[in-house]
Amino acid sequence: MPYFDAASAAPLHPVARQALLAALDEGWADPARLYREGRRARLLLDAAREAAAEAVGCRPDELVFTPSGTRALHEGIAGALAGRRRVGRHLVVSAVEHSAVLHSAEVLEAAGGTVTRVAVERTGRVGVGAYAQALRPDTALAVLQSANHEVGTEQPVAEVAEACRAVGVPLLVDAAQSLGWGPVAGDWSLLAASAHKWGGPSGVGLLAVRKGVRYAVAGPSDERESGRAPGFPNLPAVVAAAASLRAVRQEAAQEGARLRELVERVRVRVPELVPDAEVVGDPVRRLPHLVTFSCLYVDGEALLHALDQAGFSVSSGSSCTSSTLTPSHVLRAMGVLSEGNVRVSLPWGTAAEDVERFLDVLPGAVAGVREQLGVRTGVPTSASGDPAELVLDTLGKRCPIPVIELAKVIGSVEVGGVVRVLSDDSAARLDIPAWCEMCGHEYVGEEAVEGGVAYRVRRRV
Amino acid sequence: MPYFDAASAAPLHPVARQALLAALDEGWADPARLYREGRRARLLLDAAREAAAEAVGCRPDELVFTPSGTRALHEGIAGALAGRRRVGRHLVVSAVEHSAVLHSAEVLEAAGGTVTRVAVERTGRVGVGAYAQALRPDTALAVLQSANHEVGTEQPVAEVAEACRAVGVPLLVDAAQSLGWGPVAGDWSLLAASAHKWGGPSGVGLLAVRKGVRYAVAGPSDERESGRAPGFPNLPAVVAAAASLRAVRQEAAQEGARLRELVERVRVRVPELVPDAEVVGDPVRRLPHLVTFSCLYVDGEALLHALDQAGFSVSSGSSCTSSTLTPSHVLRAMGVLSEGNVRVSLPWGTAAEDVERFLDVLPGAVAGVREQLGVRTGVPTSASGDPAELVLDTLGKRCPIPVIELAKVIGSVEVGGVVRVLSDDSAARLDIPAWCEMCGHEYVGEEAVEGGVAYRVRRRV
Repeated sequence: MPYFDAASAAPLHPVARQALLAALDEGWADPARLYREGRRARLLLDAAREAAAEAVGCRPDELVFTPSGTRALHEGIAGALAGRRRVGRHLVVSAVEHSAVLHSAEVLEAAGGTVTRVAVERTGRVGVGAYAQALRPDTALAVLQSANHEVGTEQPVAEVAEACRAVGVPLLVDAAQSLGWGPVAGDWSLLAASAHKWGGPSGVGLLAVRKGVRYAVAGPSDERESGRAPGFPNLPAVVAAAASLRAVRQEAAQEGARLRELVERVRVRVPELVPDAEVVGDPVRRLPHLVTFSCLYVDGEALLHALDQAGFSVSSGSSCTSSTLTPSHVLRAMGVLSEGNVRVSLPWGTAAEDVERFLDVLPGAVAGVREQLGVRTGVPTSASGDPAELVLDTLGKRCPIPVIELAKVIGSVEVGGVVRVLSDDSAARLDIPAWCEMCGHEYVGEEAVEGGVAYRVRRRV
Repeated sequence: MPYFDAASAAPLHPVARQALLAALDEGWADPARLYREGRRARLLLDAAREAAAEAVGCRPDELVFTPSGTRALHEGIAGALAGRRRVGRHLVVSAVEHSAVLHSAEVLEAAGGTVTRVAVERTGRVGVGAYAQALRPDTALAVLQSANHEVGTEQPVAEVAEACRAVGVPLLVDAAQSLGWGPVAGDWSLLAASAHKWGGPSGVGLLAVRKGVRYAVAGPSDERESGRAPGFPNLPAVVAAAASLRAVRQEAAQEGARLRELVERVRVRVPELVPDAEVVGDPVRRLPHLVTFSCLYVDGEALLHALDQAGFSVSSGSSCTSSTLTPSHVLRAMGVLSEGNVRVSLPWGTAAEDVERFLDVLPGAVAGVREQLGVRTGVPTSASGDPAELVLDTLGKRCPIPVIELAKVIGSVEVGGVVRVLSDDSAARLDIPAWCEMCGHEYVGEEAVEGGVAYRVRRRV
C-alpha cells in the first residue's frame, strides 16, 4: 500500500527504530543526574547532539532539541525577536512559509509589531531582490524556508542570507523539508527542523542558534537545553532522530537522484494523462521527492478518497479538504489553481512500480470524480443567438462547484461575451482566474456584490 | 543495581514499552489526514485520550497531550492567566511548587503581575486557611501540587479547591507525582501531569482544562490538541503513556501499600542507624514511595557519590549537588536541614531486599563522608576557661563546611556563650538554625557583616 505523503510524516527509518529501542533501555533516566543511569543518559544526549550538529553544520552547543519542528519555529522566532527587541519589532517572512511561522508572525502583529510577507513568483520561489527590499533598519528577524512544504520549490536561502548579513539582520531558516537531503547552504543565523520528516520519530525538532546571535528566552526559565527548550528531554526519540539523520544523509545523494527521476516522471506524465491538470512549483530548483498538481473540476476531498480507495495516500491543499474552507495559502500566494489539488511526496525507498501504478490509477480517479460532479470537459461549442452577458449565481456553493458551473455555461454566451460568476467561496478568487488561463478565456476582474463577489470572465474560444 | 529516583524519572513500564512498539508501526502518520495511515493514527490518539481522561477523571475533550509535564504547567498557567486577564493579574502558588510553576510565576511578575507564595508548615504541607487567605478579588489563578516532589508530603487539594470554588478562582493542580497512584480528589479546574513519572515514556505530559474554565492560548495558534499544545503529536509516546497509566492504576492500591511499608521502614530506621540524621516531610499524609532525610556534617554530592559507588541511585536537594549553589527551595520553605540531603523514591516493583541493603550501606556511606571531612560528632565537652564569645570565619566556604566548623568549635565556648559564624553560603541560613534544633543549642539570629552574614548561636549543652 504506497504511502506518498512523506512531507507530512515519513515512516520510521529502520535505524531510528533500532536506536529508539536501544535508548528506551539506556536513556530513560534524567541526564542531569549524577548517578550511573543519569550519566548513561547524558552520554547518549551528548552523542546525539554532536551527530545532529554535524549534520546541521553547527557547533553542538549551538543546537537544542525541541518537542517538534513547530515548537522549534515558535520558540526560535520568539527568542530571536525578543533578543533584538531594541533594534525593532519588524519581521520579514515569505508568503509561503509553514503555518507555524505565519502564526508566529500573527502573534507579533497582535503585540504591536509589524510583518512583511514577501510575495513569491508563480513557481513559489521568492525573489532575492524582493526579499532584500523588505529588510528595514528596524527588522529584528527574517525567516525563510529552505524549500516549500506544499510544492517543493527550493528557496534562494544562501543569497537571502547574504542580503540579511549585509544589513545585520539574522536569518532563521525553516529546513524542515530539506534537512534530510543535505545541510542548508549559506550563512544563516538560526535553523529549525523536524525529525519525523526524515524518518526520525515524532516528538523531536531541532533549533540551532549560531553563537553571537542575540537571543532571549521568552517563556519561563528552565535549566534544560540551554534554557531554550524547557522540560524533561525526550531522550530515546532524540537519540533515534540523530541516528536516522546520519543514516539518511549517507544515502541522500543516491536516493535523492532516484526519487528526483520518479518525480520528474510524474511531472511529465500527469498533464499528458489527465485533461485540464496543471503541475505547480519550480520544475528544476525543487526537492527531489515532492510534486504537486491541480486538476480542474475536481473536488479535492473526493479525489483523495478515490486515491485512498485505490491504495494511495496523498495530501491536498484544496479548500475542500480543509476544515477552514480556504485554499492553501501557498497556492494562493503563487496564484495557481487550488481545486483538485494533490501533493505527492515520496518516502525514502519508494518503488518505481508504485509510482507507475499511481500514474495508471490517477486518470480514472479524476475522471470518476468529474463524472460524479456532472462535468463535461473540453471547449464548449457556441450556438448562434447566445447572449452577450450572463449571470451565474453560485452563492453558497463550494469549490469546485463554481468553476464547474462556469465551465458548463461558458458556451452559452457568444465569443467575446461575459459570464459574471457570483460566489462567496474564497477558493473562487484563486480558481476562476486560474481556470481562465488554463482554458484560454479572459479573466476581466472582480467586484463586490451582495453576499459575495462577482467574477467577470470573457469567453475567448 | 537498585534505582531509587522514581520521582525524577521512572524506568519504562513493560506495558508502555509494548504499546510504544506497536504504535511505532501503527501510529507514525499524521492523525489529521484522511487516508488510512492517518485514520489509524487518529484512532490510536482518540483511544489514548479516552484512557487518559478516564484516569484523570475528566472528559476526553478536556484533555490534551503536551510534550512534558513542565510544558503542561507552563502552558496551563499561561493559558489560565490569559483567560482571566480581565479579572486580574494575581497568582497564588504554594512556596513548595515545582520549579516549572515558580518560573511561570516569575514570568508573570516580570510582566507586571503579582504572586503570593503561600508558606508551608515544617512538614511541607500548606495550610488550607493560609491558602484561602491568599485569594483576592483580582486572583486570576491558584496553583497547588497534589503532593510534593522532594519530600512526598500530600497537599490538602480537595479543601483548597473548595476554598477556590467559593470565591470563583480556578485551581490548577500539579499532579505530576501522584497521578499514577490515583485520581486527584476535589473539584479542581485544571490539572497537569507527566508520563515518565508513572513509568510512561518521556516526551508526554497531560493538561486537563475543565469545560467552563476561561482559557486563552497565549502563543501562536495551531490546529493540534484544541490549539493548546502546538506541533505534530508525539503519538507512539502518547499511546504508551495512556496504556501505562491504565496499567499502573490497576496495581496502584496493592503496590502503593507495599511501597508505603518499605518507606516507613526507611523513615524509622534511618534516624536509628545514622547519628544526626533527620527525616523530613509529613509522616502520614505522604506519597507511598518517597522519603527524604538529611544528615548533618555531610556533603550531599560526596554522599550521592558514595551511594552510587555502592550501587544506589538517589537524588538530593542539598546545595552542594546543584549547579546554583542554593539549597532546594522546598527544604528552605519548610525550614529544615538541607545539608547531606537524600531523596529516596522507589519505583514500582522495588524489592524489599534492596531497601534493606540500602539501610545496610547508608550508615557506612555517611560515616565515610564525615570522616573525609574530619567531623567529630556527638556533644562536645566543655573546658573551663572557655571564652563567652568566639567568631568563626567561614567566608568563602560552602555547605557543609560552615556547620562542620561550627560543630568543631562550639565546645570551645562556655555553656551560655555565643559563636558568631560568618558565612556567605546561602545554605547556612537554613542549616545553622536546623543544626541548633537538632543539637540542642539556641539559634539567636543573624546580622549583616561585610562580605556575608553573621549567624549567632548560643551553646546550651
